[in-house]
Amino acid sequence: MNEIATTPVRTRRSKSSPPPVRIFSLGGIGEIGKNMYGIEFKNEIILIDAGLKFPDSRLSGIDYIIPDITYLVNNSHKIKGLFLTHGHEDHIGAIPFLLRQLQIPIYGGALTIGLVKAKLEEYRLRGQTELHVFQENDRYTFQHLSVHFFRTTHSIPDAFGIVVETPYGSVVHTGDFKFDFTPEDRLADLPKMASVGGGGVLALLADSTNSEKEGFTPSERKVGDAILDSFQKCEGRILFATFASNVHRLQQVVEAAILCNRTIAVLGRSMEKVFTIAQELGYIRIPDGMMIDIKQIDRFEDQQILIVCTGSQGEPNAALSRIASGSHRTVQIYPGDSVIFSSSPIPGNTQNINRSIDLLMRAGANVIYGNSVGIHTSGHGCREDLKLMLSFIRPKYFIPIHGEYRMLLSHRNLAIQTGIPEERVFIMDIGDTLSVYRNRAKRGRTIPAGEVFISNGEMRTFEDALLEERGELAQEGIVIVVMTVDKTTQQILSGPDIVTRGFVYMQDARPLLRRAEMMLKRNLNKLRERQEYDHAAWTRTTYKVLRRHFTKEVGRTPHIMPSILEV
Amino acid sequence: MNEIATTPVRTRRSKSSPPPVRIFSLGGIGEIGKNMYGIEFKNEIILIDAGLKFPDSRLSGIDYIIPDITYLVNNSHKIKGLFLTHGHEDHIGAIPFLLRQLQIPIYGGALTIGLVKAKLEEYRLRGQTELHVFQENDRYTFQHLSVHFFRTTHSIPDAFGIVVETPYGSVVHTGDFKFDFTPEDRLADLPKMASVGGGGVLALLADSTNSEKEGFTPSERKVGDAILDSFQKCEGRILFATFASNVHRLQQVVEAAILCNRTIAVLGRSMEKVFTIAQELGYIRIPDGMMIDIKQIDRFEDQQILIVCTGSQGEPNAALSRIASGSHRTVQIYPGDSVIFSSSPIPGNTQNINRSIDLLMRAGANVIYGNSVGIHTSGHGCREDLKLMLSFIRPKYFIPIHGEYRMLLSHRNLAIQTGIPEERVFIMDIGDTLSVYRNRAKRGRTIPAGEVFISNGEMRTFEDALLEERGELAQEGIVIVVMTVDKTTQQILSGPDIVTRGFVYMQDARPLLRRAEMMLKRNLNKLRERQEYDHAAWTRTTYKVLRRHFTKEVGRTPHIMPSILEV
Repeated sequence: MNEIATTPVRTRRSKSSPPPVRIFSLGGIGEIGKNMYGIEFKNEIILIDAGLKFPDSRLSGIDYIIPDITYLVNNSHKIKGLFLTHGHEDHIGAIPFLLRQLQIPIYGGALTIGLVKAKLEEYRLRGQTELHVFQENDRYTFQHLSVHFFRTTHSIPDAFGIVVETPYGSVVHTGDFKFDFTPEDRLADLPKMASVGGGGVLALLADSTNSEKEGFTPSERKVGDAILDSFQKCEGRILFATFASNVHRLQQVVEAAILCNRTIAVLGRSMEKVFTIAQELGYIRIPDGMMIDIKQIDRFEDQQILIVCTGSQGEPNAALSRIASGSHRTVQIYPGDSVIFSSSPIPGNTQNINRSIDLLMRAGANVIYGNSVGIHTSGHGCREDLKLMLSFIRPKYFIPIHGEYRMLLSHRNLAIQTGIPEERVFIMDIGDTLSVYRNRAKRGRTIPAGEVFISNGEMRTFEDALLEERGELAQEGIVIVVMTVDKTTQQILSGPDIVTRGFVYMQDARPLLRRAEMMLKRNLNKLRERQEYDHAAWTRTTYKVLRRHFTKEVGRTPHIMPSILEV
Repeated sequence: MNEIATTPVRTRRSKSSPPPVRIFSLGGIGEIGKNMYGIEFKNEIILIDAGLKFPDSRLSGIDYIIPDITYLVNNSHKIKGLFLTHGHEDHIGAIPFLLRQLQIPIYGGALTIGLVKAKLEEYRLRGQTELHVFQENDRYTFQHLSVHFFRTTHSIPDAFGIVVETPYGSVVHTGDFKFDFTPEDRLADLPKMASVGGGGVLALLADSTNSEKEGFTPSERKVGDAILDSFQKCEGRILFATFASNVHRLQQVVEAAILCNRTIAVLGRSMEKVFTIAQELGYIRIPDGMMIDIKQIDRFEDQQILIVCTGSQGEPNAALSRIASGSHRTVQIYPGDSVIFSSSPIPGNTQNINRSIDLLMRAGANVIYGNSVGIHTSGHGCREDLKLMLSFIRPKYFIPIHGEYRMLLSHRNLAIQTGIPEERVFIMDIGDTLSVYRNRAKRGRTIPAGEVFISNGEMRTFEDALLEERGELAQEGIVIVVMTVDKTTQQILSGPDIVTRGFVYMQDARPLLRRAEMMLKRNLNKLRERQEYDHAAWTRTTYKVLRRHFTKEVGRTPHIMPSILEV
């Protein structure tokens, strides 16, 4: 066991009231994604996870959303380290952007740090960042707080829960977890969980994702069995799509492929990246010569081919989606191919997945998908898993995390059922703080929190207006009115000319637009008779007149942009 | 039984080969929505259903999609009538647009015609349309074809299957159906189905919606029980959201409300419309005084109130969604309210529904939702229902309809399992035709088919370009470049001025845009030194230069619109 100590620093203590342990979240509560949690005591903050979130279809042109870290920037001197529960994007994806504003050491499991390294290399931040791989029995001790870990099971290896020891007791963060008693990889450290719980836990923050679902989450091993079973029934090529990060799943796929005498080609950038890193770290063991380049697949018989690819969520640019639509440069579907969707639709992706399935079937593939086949299981615990965790940890105070509101509420109700008093369960929001003492907990002051949009690698604190503009452009199209005015004579030298995009189909529109131009010109000439030429007044009039005209003629109004040039 | 005959008309027959019975679809195959089917023999076409489809989120500014009826317009003299299986929008929604181009009599059940009447009144087409309510034992006889019906059970009353008798045998169309042996309303006419099947059926077109799901679809009665059960547990107000068209569900809600002593207020335009029409026709029976206006609810105790509303699919403008977001003028949620989602998410709507649920919970409502509670069942038959239908009808040829490709494929496989030879099952596409004779069937020539977009009540045969434009505008924003050129001197009199929408946040952008303007001006002046001023060349140069500039400076390029005015 490693003990890493830091030099003690004296701070003045107010004699009146003892300082609280403050627990807060900057992301991941009331939503799925962009997880970021903090445990703070006096001059120390332990940060847990720094994830991103993918925008839903309503936001155009945004790549990612990350937490607003104003609070961290304002308290940067307090941050002792960023501790990562596991390597999924919703827990590590914000790191490059965090590091642009903060310099903090990062701690994680081996695979987690491997994935973070690759990410930092993409963003060219590798050199200046302090990365630490922790072992499961390591402990990091700071002046007031210390941090240690317990292994859990999730849909990616090296998933850990985090224990932050505070002067008032331990605060436990489960990370994302389920209980898998027949894991592909290592067992969760149940004795340690029991021991942590036995020592008395002040507060627990636990994964609420599947809190609405009854029972236990099925083991990854069952999926491995179902995969082998499916493979054995396939006579031609197999295309297997799953989450790139599910290394356990990929290892089971490799083992099934070995048993079925198939070579493996990997397709899709994230899939290739994970295979590489996981192999380097020994999480995926593939016999030499078993992996081939995708361009070589035609040298093998159909029944010798397994293609492992991205696209299990029907993502339009992923490998399988492009294969399905016939637009992949290297791989086309032909009858006899089998395609396996080893995944479950994430809300919002259902139609994309259905589209993929239909296209693959039309191309003649036999597609295996859906819940009943057993070829996928979640990485998050259902109600029985969550009850078991609560039984191990037996916290005084409970904060459901990693879930949308109804999941938090469901987890709260479940915790109350296990005997935690209602008033000791706290449903929080990002920016809320909970002040915890040995024998009481209350909501504290709020801290700045919110969303930061990433577009093309750059942070944008977009005003709603920009998104509205894009939405409006998409909804209604745009009409640009251009004219040139002689400032001296106030004559309209040229125009008004109206051009449109996305408003009406141009051929249809010519008479409509010509009428609009004529009517606008009349109105502006009348205006000029009544008053001195004024740029603002002409702009306003143009806008009003056209708005009224289009509403009358077409029933709706596009985004109108008057552009009056003065000569 | 009514026999309605039409005057026979002689046509010349080719002695060489007998004409086929042609079966085709213009919508509803390979998709869910815009159903339209035709059975044609010689100079007669029987049209079945005329529905619309709602666009998915990728299409902006489109309200509906309807079938391209070019084929019908070109053969209008052959169309004997439009026969409607039931009153859902995906079976009657295209009627107003159909009637703008064709004058054909329309036949349907009582509620169906009631809903069609209301629709025609909205579109001001009521006066000129011939509407017929058929009874379940009616028969309509034309020269070669005759049409009769059999009652089925679906999620709306007056759902019928349609039998078209042809010289070679009957063609049966199931409409949308399930088998419900304890229906809220009338039983399906099983004896008639058996009798039709016993007489020998040439071809069957059957509903494939739930063909991937095992078992029988649960009865509406079970849902009624669950609803009463839920109501009895609610102590405060109840808000009940379901599909407006599910009259059986609404009748059960009324009955539960009677037992729980609650008055009913109806919220939402489509819900109010259905309640009105269904009451007029006797499908919903509400005691006098039980229904109140929404504005009166404050006169009653909480436990006396039941609000039946739209919004079960999280539709942003529906009543419950506006209540959830706090933007409804009359109703706000307060703690103690119960909200019941008596529905199942249609793919594409999951996130909207989740958003609604979360907002309602945050406002303090107890929300009842999800599969396990039993408060919803589908109107479409699962595999056992479909096998039962195939057992009754025992067709020679089978055409799965009303489903996306994987549903059609699933239905095909199921039919083969019941003993129909593979080569007699046809998966078709809209525009395909099947030529059927007494003893053989083969694919015939294709007919025109496709999509027509409705935007604001008008048909638009949009080019892809328009949709792409809107998509691009939404994705990247737009940059407009305006300048005035003196044609004689070729001097730039004014500009170039660059304005943007949705590209970059304006404050950020000023330096970027000023640099772009200066750089463009330099480039255009250089161009002017090299060659005679030419509008097209200047436009092209503007476009190229800015594209390169923005890509270099910002990493992406918006939609660029040069606008050069000549003076």
